[in-house]
Amino acid sequence: MPESLLVVGSIALDTLRTPYGEAKDELGGSATFFSVAASLFAPVRLVGVVGEDFPPDYRQVFDSRQIDTAGLVVVPGGKTFRWHGSYQGAMNEARTEDVKLNVFGDFRPVIPPPFRQSRLVFLANGSPVTQASVLDQVEKPALVVADTMNLWIDTQKDALLALLARVDGLVLNEGEARMLTGDPNLVRAGRKILGLGPKFVVIKKGEHGALLVANPQTVGGDSPNRSVCPLPAFPATEVCDPTGAGDSFAGGMMGYLASTGAFGFQHLIRAMAYGTVIASFAIEDFGLRRFNHLTIDEVDSRLRDYHDMLAF
Amino acid sequence: MPESLLVVGSIALDTLRTPYGEAKDELGGSATFFSVAASLFAPVRLVGVVGEDFPPDYRQVFDSRQIDTAGLVVVPGGKTFRWHGSYQGAMNEARTEDVKLNVFGDFRPVIPPPFRQSRLVFLANGSPVTQASVLDQVEKPALVVADTMNLWIDTQKDALLALLARVDGLVLNEGEARMLTGDPNLVRAGRKILGLGPKFVVIKKGEHGALLVANPQTVGGDSPNRSVCPLPAFPATEVCDPTGAGDSFAGGMMGYLASTGAFGFQHLIRAMAYGTVIASFAIEDFGLRRFNHLTIDEVDSRLRDYHDMLAF
Repeated sequence: MPESLLVVGSIALDTLRTPYGEAKDELGGSATFFSVAASLFAPVRLVGVVGEDFPPDYRQVFDSRQIDTAGLVVVPGGKTFRWHGSYQGAMNEARTEDVKLNVFGDFRPVIPPPFRQSRLVFLANGSPVTQASVLDQVEKPALVVADTMNLWIDTQKDALLALLARVDGLVLNEGEARMLTGDPNLVRAGRKILGLGPKFVVIKKGEHGALLVANPQTVGGDSPNRSVCPLPAFPATEVCDPTGAGDSFAGGMMGYLASTGAFGFQHLIRAMAYGTVIASFAIEDFGLRRFNHLTIDEVDSRLRDYHDMLAF
Repeated sequence: MPESLLVVGSIALDTLRTPYGEAKDELGGSATFFSVAASLFAPVRLVGVVGEDFPPDYRQVFDSRQIDTAGLVVVPGGKTFRWHGSYQGAMNEARTEDVKLNVFGDFRPVIPPPFRQSRLVFLANGSPVTQASVLDQVEKPALVVADTMNLWIDTQKDALLALLARVDGLVLNEGEARMLTGDPNLVRAGRKILGLGPKFVVIKKGEHGALLVANPQTVGGDSPNRSVCPLPAFPATEVCDPTGAGDSFAGGMMGYLASTGAFGFQHLIRAMAYGTVIASFAIEDFGLRRFNHLTIDEVDSRLRDYHDMLAF
């Protein structure tokens, strides 16, 4: 029986431009990608905020999946968070053309009472103060994983360090890992982050995959000598829009962990492999579109291909 | 019984500066790193050129290994190729501070008659015209692999394209693969390179590993549906000097292939895994120093660790 999985983060309307075309007012946001990806594996409890302009069709994206929207607040008269971004060339980096935080700017998440016993918690990218306020409301989580970004490392480092002492796992990209630790070597950077509290850290490298660095004393599992796992990205040829790849990765990872209920090193690696495969689907079309016709059978089939690729 | 392996390329005296220190007149050059790495697996036939200033101690580096130096020319009164480079931060890119081609500038490789029946040939980075002249002298090679660089893509593209029609494999870095094909997606770039002639291409991504793209029709092996393999770099914490990592990678790869004598897809993947592990040793110390006390047992032990890391 899957464990319950809570996510708190942004829900957005994205306008995107990539070498493959444009899309306007696509459903996006960290909590959205995370929820939809995770819901392939386990029931998800979503906490977020939108404005009155949030289209009913988009609400249906959640309601048609095992995503509980009891924590989705609609602000009367408010406008949904909007992000306008573009990508060029190898699409390794998004360029933000425009941001309007709108109702997300004043988001003070309130966790509905039935959600407070959630066993797994994902704190999508947000202010570490807000992330900590979520943790204050959760009763006895078994696994808390946070995402963060350069903005918070730069402007709220103390709050971020206080948060890191309270989480089991951290997900961040390679530039952020280097920025947080001052160490250009990613394995050493990962180990320095473990020194700040987490049992494991997943460093995302975009098209180059991800690196897991874990503390074998605290993570547990049947492989006490293993603490590092580099996984390449799935070698995709159809990359249409990288938006949400990282949050889809985290959703696949946490969704898989919720489905197994075990969090040892070997489970983390397999979870990361699922995250990798889910992200490879996410980028094949604009926004969330690929998830509209993605089955768990397709996911498992690609996971087998991915597994076979790495067998030498 | 291992197959015979011929390499033609540069032998240099490198002066290096990295965040970990400096080294002056270290033995370097593409053919040097390649030979020393490959000789862990199979006998190597080296063709290159040095000046009269080449230290006897460095000659001993070859002579103490299974590296045949019958093709090593010493130019009377000449000076050895010198490269002065530096690395900063994450050390992803070398900065060339100074280059003196010296005797290497006029290098017109002559393959000694006993080397002309070599079954495996590695054309280390050099002008495609020179690389083709080597091929003209080799009688019936079973596997020819070439390295190249941006300079030749830029200045001798026609000669490079003519060469590519004659080789079985190409090794190049990710920026070069994008430059050669105009495609930012590395899998597609790899497939476009296959369209130019090679049966397989290995795209090196430095600290992010390597990507193999093969033509299943021509490479053969027991896995007709497999044509792409991404391998991460071995997660190293001691990166002292990346000089020669790519050539050590190629040496480990080709050395392993020479030791097995089979070149199907599955062999290529395993060869790439060996190359990855060899490169991870090469960068632990300046120049070739780590190879002075590297045993095949250490290599096999790290290969097992690497294999286990990727098992999910």
